[in-house]
Parts: sequence; C-alpha cells; structure tokens
Amino acid sequence: MATTATRIRELIVTPIAFRDPPLLNASGVHEPLALRCVLQLVLEDGTVGLGETPGGTARLARLQAAAKAVVGMDVFQATAVSAAVDATLRSTEPSSHERGWITSAIEVACLDAQGRLTGRPVSDLLGGRVRDAVPFAAYLFYKWAEHPALDGDPAVGDDWGAALDPAGIVEQARVMQQRYGFRSFKLKGGVFPPDEEIAAIRALAEAFPGQPLRLDPNTAWTVSTSQYVANELDGVLEYLEDPTAGIEGMAEVARTAPMPLATNMCVIAWEHLRPALEQNAIQVLLTDHHYWGGLRRTRELAAVCEAFGIALSMHSNSHLGISLAAMTHVAATLPGLDHSCDTHYPWNSADEVIVPGALELRDGAVAVPTGPGLGVELDPEALDRLHRLYLTSGIRDRDDSGYMRSVRPEYEPGLPRW
Amino acid sequence: MATTATRIRELIVTPIAFRDPPLLNASGVHEPLALRCVLQLVLEDGTVGLGETPGGTARLARLQAAAKAVVGMDVFQATAVSAAVDATLRSTEPSSHERGWITSAIEVACLDAQGRLTGRPVSDLLGGRVRDAVPFAAYLFYKWAEHPALDGDPAVGDDWGAALDPAGIVEQARVMQQRYGFRSFKLKGGVFPPDEEIAAIRALAEAFPGQPLRLDPNTAWTVSTSQYVANELDGVLEYLEDPTAGIEGMAEVARTAPMPLATNMCVIAWEHLRPALEQNAIQVLLTDHHYWGGLRRTRELAAVCEAFGIALSMHSNSHLGISLAAMTHVAATLPGLDHSCDTHYPWNSADEVIVPGALELRDGAVAVPTGPGLGVELDPEALDRLHRLYLTSGIRDRDDSGYMRSVRPEYEPGLPRW
Repeated sequence: MATTATRIRELIVTPIAFRDPPLLNASGVHEPLALRCVLQLVLEDGTVGLGETPGGTARLARLQAAAKAVVGMDVFQATAVSAAVDATLRSTEPSSHERGWITSAIEVACLDAQGRLTGRPVSDLLGGRVRDAVPFAAYLFYKWAEHPALDGDPAVGDDWGAALDPAGIVEQARVMQQRYGFRSFKLKGGVFPPDEEIAAIRALAEAFPGQPLRLDPNTAWTVSTSQYVANELDGVLEYLEDPTAGIEGMAEVARTAPMPLATNMCVIAWEHLRPALEQNAIQVLLTDHHYWGGLRRTRELAAVCEAFGIALSMHSNSHLGISLAAMTHVAATLPGLDHSCDTHYPWNSADEVIVPGALELRDGAVAVPTGPGLGVELDPEALDRLHRLYLTSGIRDRDDSGYMRSVRPEYEPGLPRW
Repeated sequence: MATTATRIRELIVTPIAFRDPPLLNASGVHEPLALRCVLQLVLEDGTVGLGETPGGTARLARLQAAAKAVVGMDVFQATAVSAAVDATLRSTEPSSHERGWITSAIEVACLDAQGRLTGRPVSDLLGGRVRDAVPFAAYLFYKWAEHPALDGDPAVGDDWGAALDPAGIVEQARVMQQRYGFRSFKLKGGVFPPDEEIAAIRALAEAFPGQPLRLDPNTAWTVSTSQYVANELDGVLEYLEDPTAGIEGMAEVARTAPMPLATNMCVIAWEHLRPALEQNAIQVLLTDHHYWGGLRRTRELAAVCEAFGIALSMHSNSHLGISLAAMTHVAATLPGLDHSCDTHYPWNSADEVIVPGALELRDGAVAVPTGPGLGVELDPEALDRLHRLYLTSGIRDRDDSGYMRSVRPEYEPGLPRW
C-alpha cells in the first residue's frame, strides 16, 4: 500500500512567535512572545498534515534535520517514520526526551494526513473517542498587569490585569470560569513563599467549593517544604504537582502527602517509568503527547499507567490550536483519563494559526472535532504574520529567568527556593 | 463522523470445527477436531469485518450476548465497542481474562472493517509495519501417528507420523523446516519425564546448531524440577516457557534460572502485570491478541513490556487464517518484538476458512498482507462445511484430558506432574 501518493514529499517547518502575557512561575516570567514551530507535512498527492511543537534554536535545528530524514517515507508507516527520525537525531542528541519532542510533532502531522486521506478524524485512528468533549482546567497564574517597558519598548498590558495575591487569583479564576465555563482550577505556584500560595488555594476552595483544585510549584520546594504544604492542604487539593525535584524527592514527599502527587517533570521519558513506579513516586501522570512520542504513544503510556494504577491528567505549554486539536483528539480516546487536562489556550488564543471555529472552550471543555484528520485548517495569512513576528522579534529561545532578571536584576533563579 | 454507513448492523457468530492431529501436551491430547468461532461484523453499508476466536459453549454464549450489544454502534469507535461488550459480559463473567477473549475478537473484526472502509491494511491502522514479514517458530509436538479408533470411528492418521522420542522430534523439526523454512523451534513439553524432554532439546540443539530453541511444559513441573531443567539446559534454550504455575512459582524459578522465563499462563490479564513485574517473575511475555483485548491493546501491552524491559514473543492456540492474519498484522507493527512468534498453523491449515493465497509460511515467516483490512477473504463454502462439521461432530468444548482418558483410562491430569 506504499503507493507514491502517500509518500512524504516535504516537511515544512515554520518557526512562529505569538503574544504571551507576563505569567509568573518558579523560573521567572513569560516573555512578551512565546515561540512555537508549525509543521506542514506535504505528501506526494498534495495532502498536508499539520503539527505544532515548542520552538527554540536547538529544537528548530533538530526539526530541520528530521525533515530531511522523512522525505520519501510512507505517511501510514508512522512508527517507522518515528524510528527514522529518532535514529537521525541520536548522533547529536543523546536525550530520548529531547528526541521525543521531534518525533511527536511529526507523528501528529502523519496522523493528521492519514485522517485527511481516509476521511476519518484522528480520534478514530487511535481507537475512537470515548467522550465527545474533553474537559480542561482553568490554568491560573500569578501575573503582572503588563509587560514592563524595556529597551524603548512600551509597556504591554492585557485584559486580565494583575494577580499577585489570593484575591487576585480568585478574581482571575472567576473571569476564567465566566469566559470558558471551567469547573476545575490549577494554580501555577512556586512564585511566592509557600504560605501565600497555600492562602491562595484556600481562597479558591472557599470561592469554588467542591471544584477540583491543583497546585504546581514546578519543583520550587525542598522535600520538607513540600511535606509541609501537602499537610496544610490536606482535603483541599485534588493533587499536588511537582512540589520537589526528582523521582527520589517525589517518592519521599509521597510517603507522607495526604493527596496524590502528579508530575510532568520527573517522569518525562519511557526510561523514567520503571523507577518512578517502583518507588511509588507519583500517583498521577500528566501526559503530554508533545514529548512522549505522539498520540499513539500517549495511548500506550496510558496503558502503562493503567497497569500500575497511576491516574492520568494532561500537561500543557503555551500553545495554539493545532496542539489543542491534537490534545483533544487523544484525550477523547483515553478511557482512563481521570482528571481535566491543562491548557494555556486562554492566554494565547488571540494569536491563532488556524481558521477560527473548529475549536471552542465551552462549559470547560472542547468538543472533539469530527472532520477528517485533526479537524483544523491552517490560516496561511496568520502563519505568515506570526512567522514574520518571529523573524523580527529577535527572540530565539525561551528564557523566563533572563527576562525576569532584565526587570529585577536581583532575581536568583536557583531551585529549590523554599 | 458516526454516519449511518459505518454503524454495525449485525455480528454473525459461526462456530466451526476443523481437523487437528493427536498432539500431546501436559493436559492430555488434542481431539480429532478443534473448535473456533468465526465472526462476521456486518455494517449498514454491507462492509464485513472478520474475526476468529477459540470456540466452546461458554465462549459461544458470551459472543452471542456481545453480538446484541454492538448493534448500532459505530465501527470506528472500537474502544467504546470493547467497553460496551465488557460491560455486557461483566454481570455473568467476573474474569477479565475471559471477557478479554470476546472483546478481542470483536475488535479485530472492527479493525478489518475499518481497513476495508479506508482502503488501508490493518497494520497501517496500528501505526504501520516496521517489518514486511513476521518470523514464526516451528511448533513441535510429541504426537501419536494417528487418532485412535474409538466408539466405532476409524483411526485417523496424518502425514506427520508419530513423534515420541528425541529422534521423532528432530525428524518432525526437519520436516517443518523443509516445508516452511522455520529458523527457530519450540517444543511443547510436559508430556514425558523431564529428562526425556531435556534429551529432545539437546538433540534439537545438535541437529540445528545456533537456531533458537524453546521448551514449554505448560506448568507440568514443580519449582525444584523447573530449577533442575533450567540448570540442565543452560546455554541451550532461548527461553523456558511456563515451567511452573503462578507468578510466585515463576519468580522463584527465575531467581536461579540461567535463561529468561516466558509466559502465556501466569500473566494473562492487565491486573497480572504489576505483580509479575514487581516480582521479576518473567523476562519474556508471549502476547496473544485473542485474550489481551485485541490488536491495539497488544500494542499497548508491548509498551508496558518496553517500559519494564520485558522481551516480547507471541502465543498461539490452534487457529486458522483470520487469526494468522491478525497476528501477522499486529506483530509487524511492534518494534520490540524480540522473538519469532508461535503458530499452530501448519497443523491446521488444511482446513481453512479463507480464500487461499493471502497468507503463506515461507522462509519461516509470513509476509504482511497489504490489501485493505486483514487482507484475507472468507470462503463461504469452507465456512459452511466447517460449521456443519461442528454441528454434526457433537464436540462442544475442548477436553484434552477427557480425550486422553478415553484412550488411556489410567491417565491422571493433575499438575504439577513432576
């Protein structure tokens, strides 16, 4: 069946930049522009499959190397395509996690193309959906009201305003809920001393009784601080995400924490699963198809979690609609998805590369697209605009800490901080 | 996309019987006829997807109950179809392993239909093949020359002759290799005292130097006998399969065995994986899509094995071409398949339900069909003939022990025997 028509003619990789608010985290603050790469996998018959992945100099170089490796391969032999990409990158990139970002983005583009060729939504190619809409959580951030004025740039605000204390976080949550109908909330922590973040979670619990809450300080805490926070938030958190670094540290926290621990930081490649499960370091895995090898690999990862009684949620970076579509398709097929998924989409959806209308956050969920492939169409003008923004911005790598230091020279990014 | 055309109109379940030689094993001897069920999943548009699974009264009843549950469902929502079948059976069948046989057969039929509808081979729907042909092992059995004369039936011989000692097994292996080109060999043991089977393996090693050998006594041995045999066959066996019963017993043998231990008996459902892996009871898992939930679940099972460093092979029961096609498709997509697969096909291929020509054992391998779906077509006349054979045979459940006792009334089926 490897007819000429289904062979890959070209993989076009387009780096883009889009606006991002000044969202605070344990490493600093989001810069005014976030970077992604858009993939267009062009087949001999002209079919185009789309992919999206985080940007950055090294990742862009890897994508460009991979693009050469896939030319002439059959788009339906997606496992073989991934293996070829992995082999190409292996000589220069020893980390399987880093190689995973590249194979993942290309696998999604292959599946989008397969769906277009067969007339089936990607979810059908993964076993079919077990839910018609995928629930997402409101992703709350401490944030400044505006990007500061630097190097002659004007200050850039947004319509979210500042959120720097419990009242600000609750207000942000209310707006998120009003706009999108979210029924669960995640606070990005690791920004303020733990007692302040405990107070913010308690304020959310009071404002939204019975609605699931999560806190994610991105390993800003020591083991003992993590144990303290876990104890303080007993009965309040759905799960506590990455309080401290490493499988061993998480395992130590897990021994006393009254709630499940979740991660998208200490278990990020297949070789991390065995030690994490043997040490009972995590009780929830935040899958992310962008680095686990793609959508089929995410299903397979879910099976590992099922065999070991690990619950499933989903991680997100700043992203646009191609990624949201891919996340929604695979999430729709996972019977064991126990928790609403994370998404940065409300922070970034103003700058979109896809034609509007295919994806909507409503009642805290995204309906699974039912058209062929991912069910989204690239907007070539938007892509061109965001690519030019990338070219003129001068930003080539994400640097939350460097940006923070440019505003507050005394900032010290080392972790754990508390 | 759940258009009317892709809805399931009917699932036709046809029990069949086909000739089986007098193959000896730890439970007795194969009866003159083996039982299977052929599934025809008929969609509203007339597309038919095929499945095949072992027969038997209870399994047939479960299939007929499941057949009612799937009517009206969308064939592309295969995960949801499996869940509906599982839910239907749960009230009367508490064993997830037993329910798995039914969901598996139906999932294969769904995938065959999906492939026919999309014009793609099933392997493409699973991620694409990573090999164009799947290697199988010669499946050697101690056997009688003929089925004995019983109840007025005449004795029924075959062209394989008897194999009751090392020389007979080596001769059978030579014929297998001449006819099909096999390059690896598995001996079904548990029939004669361990030293006789050790001698047979040593004779095979001498006759086929460097070619992988396996021995499978189907838990006929105690832990200490297993340890003895493992020690005796150090350096001779590729792996030792199910020497003793249970995860704990296998773990005890594994602690001293110089070769990997394999199983298709103590790890046969998802809930067995965690204890087996935690106890390091097995080093090779013999997958079998017929009971692990189907072809996609087999990929997911392979991922669990990958995460835990467990090697992969494949188990077989007596089967015909629909099952061989399904086994070949999924095996073709598994990057981690380390060993040749088992198949009984040479013992049963004379009675076939599919149109000849699609599948051939050549050079010890089966080329992956490249036509739509499984790539095989049902032969309605053959199906009818084998169904009538089932009806007139009076055989309704496999009973190797009862058949052996009818020939040798002193036979005692209890295990472990040595």
